[in-house]
Amino acid sequence: MNIGIIGFGTVGSGAYEIAKAATDINVKRILARHGREGYENLDDIITHNIEDLIEDKEIDLVVEAIGGIEPARTYVLACLNAGKHVVTPNKNLISAYFEELTETASRNGVELRFTSTSGGGIPWLFNLMRTKRCDKITQVRGIVNGTCNYILDSMYDKGADFAEMLKIAQDLGYAEADPSSDIEGTDTLRKTVISANIAFDALLKEEDIYCYGIDTIEARDIAYLKEKGYTCKLLMNAKLTDAGIKAWVEPVACPLTSLEANVKANNNLITLVGESIGTQSFYGQGAGRLPTGESVVQDVIDIRDGIKMEYSEKNSKKYAACSCDEVQKYYIRHNKMSEDIMSFIEKYEEKEGVFYCISKPISVARMHDMGRHFKEEGKPMFFASIRE
Amino acid sequence: MNIGIIGFGTVGSGAYEIAKAATDINVKRILARHGREGYENLDDIITHNIEDLIEDKEIDLVVEAIGGIEPARTYVLACLNAGKHVVTPNKNLISAYFEELTETASRNGVELRFTSTSGGGIPWLFNLMRTKRCDKITQVRGIVNGTCNYILDSMYDKGADFAEMLKIAQDLGYAEADPSSDIEGTDTLRKTVISANIAFDALLKEEDIYCYGIDTIEARDIAYLKEKGYTCKLLMNAKLTDAGIKAWVEPVACPLTSLEANVKANNNLITLVGESIGTQSFYGQGAGRLPTGESVVQDVIDIRDGIKMEYSEKNSKKYAACSCDEVQKYYIRHNKMSEDIMSFIEKYEEKEGVFYCISKPISVARMHDMGRHFKEEGKPMFFASIRE
Repeated sequence: MNIGIIGFGTVGSGAYEIAKAATDINVKRILARHGREGYENLDDIITHNIEDLIEDKEIDLVVEAIGGIEPARTYVLACLNAGKHVVTPNKNLISAYFEELTETASRNGVELRFTSTSGGGIPWLFNLMRTKRCDKITQVRGIVNGTCNYILDSMYDKGADFAEMLKIAQDLGYAEADPSSDIEGTDTLRKTVISANIAFDALLKEEDIYCYGIDTIEARDIAYLKEKGYTCKLLMNAKLTDAGIKAWVEPVACPLTSLEANVKANNNLITLVGESIGTQSFYGQGAGRLPTGESVVQDVIDIRDGIKMEYSEKNSKKYAACSCDEVQKYYIRHNKMSEDIMSFIEKYEEKEGVFYCISKPISVARMHDMGRHFKEEGKPMFFASIRE
Repeated sequence: MNIGIIGFGTVGSGAYEIAKAATDINVKRILARHGREGYENLDDIITHNIEDLIEDKEIDLVVEAIGGIEPARTYVLACLNAGKHVVTPNKNLISAYFEELTETASRNGVELRFTSTSGGGIPWLFNLMRTKRCDKITQVRGIVNGTCNYILDSMYDKGADFAEMLKIAQDLGYAEADPSSDIEGTDTLRKTVISANIAFDALLKEEDIYCYGIDTIEARDIAYLKEKGYTCKLLMNAKLTDAGIKAWVEPVACPLTSLEANVKANNNLITLVGESIGTQSFYGQGAGRLPTGESVVQDVIDIRDGIKMEYSEKNSKKYAACSCDEVQKYYIRHNKMSEDIMSFIEKYEEKEGVFYCISKPISVARMHDMGRHFKEEGKPMFFASIRE
């Protein structure tokens, strides 16, 4: 099989390495602005012109690894419309244009695969699709952002503060110079959209997901939770209910004896619940050049070998996003006790003007609304749901 | 697709339920000695004669769920030789006759799948095969026996003794009336043979695997390890080295912060290490009617849809079993300190005539030889390797 690669950065070059070393897949063309150090031998196949891929009838499949929305979207649509299969690790693109892209692929009778968008090297989306061939998925959840997990894990181990650990994560290359999409939960939100749509054959959009990140967490939150037998993780959550799909991203206080609590460094752990199969979890590297590159190549091999895994939007009417009335207890840390807060607090401790509270069971929607309100007002606050 | 089912016990009926509820696979014939309560409507398709399946040209695939070696082996060989694909959860059969059965399938150009033999409902073997399409697996390990895990987990939680927890496991239906294959490690050994052969394209046999079970564990072992920050799990291990494959089954003292230590009840967690993908783990129900039945049906769907996953014995010469010279530290509890033992003990405590020892780094082979020797002499002893 001849393939083209758009973008020759971390994942593009990782996929190239894996394909070359371990398969007979031939990389015929690479679209890149310039060559890459150490790859001078590829000068002959590097082009600056997307048409060289799209118009090449011998290229059956294109790996889009340029990242971001544009020109990635235009390129992917052009490839699909030219009858080429597409494999991409681009979660921003797939999450933002899920319906348009899956519909375009389907209309052209070609495959669009994006296993590495959620879970990096973990074959999460592939197994989700394989499971639902004869089971009904009722829930997906998990740790899908390695940067946040690295920060939270280091804070727990070292008692260090958020800013310090974020800086180290940046130095190690785990976190971007602008880390906001990781720490505010947006990256996890995108993986929630993609995972939930695959799990439930739905068409959720980014704006359907309640989202609260870890950007306001402090060392004292970790210390408080640790004392009670918990550690904090940022989790995606999506549940199928009679009313529709409830989906949200938030910090969760996980008991130290849970699998999630013991996911170290920048690893991921993602879980599905099926009516017959029960609870199944998948653990591994959620990012990285070779793991993500390998996941891309596995998608390419699946397409080459005619391994069909179905997504359809068949449930998108029946299972729309619904209000997040899921009720949980929350840990809340804030500086100013108001009547509004008091109304749903079960118990609290005050230390040096800081309130550490455990809420009565309240809905995700209510807690997130309050969190957003506090953020907008510039008041210090952090919360995490408490997993029993 | 028309299929036949041989044996209508727990897994056979589970697979029937899943296939009927969630697929268009048609169960055309069931070989059973007698009907099953609640399935009187199947009287028309139940037969007592294997020829009714083998000679039926419309049956493309047979699920063998009768268990044990004979007549299962004869039936499976007859089906493969008649050009029918076979799916089976029968780990005893696959482990004991791995070479004969895979060779017979290959010679007849049909598929033989057995994902549910190792990990029950977990798509472990399937993902192992999918991963190695473009990666080199260097190691497999994990918790693959739910009965032992249930016993060890309960002993840890309750401080209870082995015999008591074994009895409860039997009452719950997790352990057989004769639990020896679980507690002596033989069941785990069979899954090690199967997993290692798939991972490394090898042809290990049961006698190649060093094996020590949990039948001599006592509450005081768990208590000692707990105090040091460990819990005990029974693990399969297989590593690819330049000298060949080292494979062994033994109790392992796992740090409380490891994923393995936090696998509760009768669940399984199985791990592969690939050169590019790194460490990946798969968690879920390792047994049970519907999970195992679903795993069987997933194999059937894969075959129906032409989803090829390759096993070949291509490395069986290059990667034969080699001496287990893997060096580890061990926890050893015994009653009588001899010179032989003293020679490799790093430190020990004595309490009420019982010696709790930590060994110097010694080889798996040496430790297992000593364990077997003590067992043969009827001397009380338990050991577990210590994972750092």
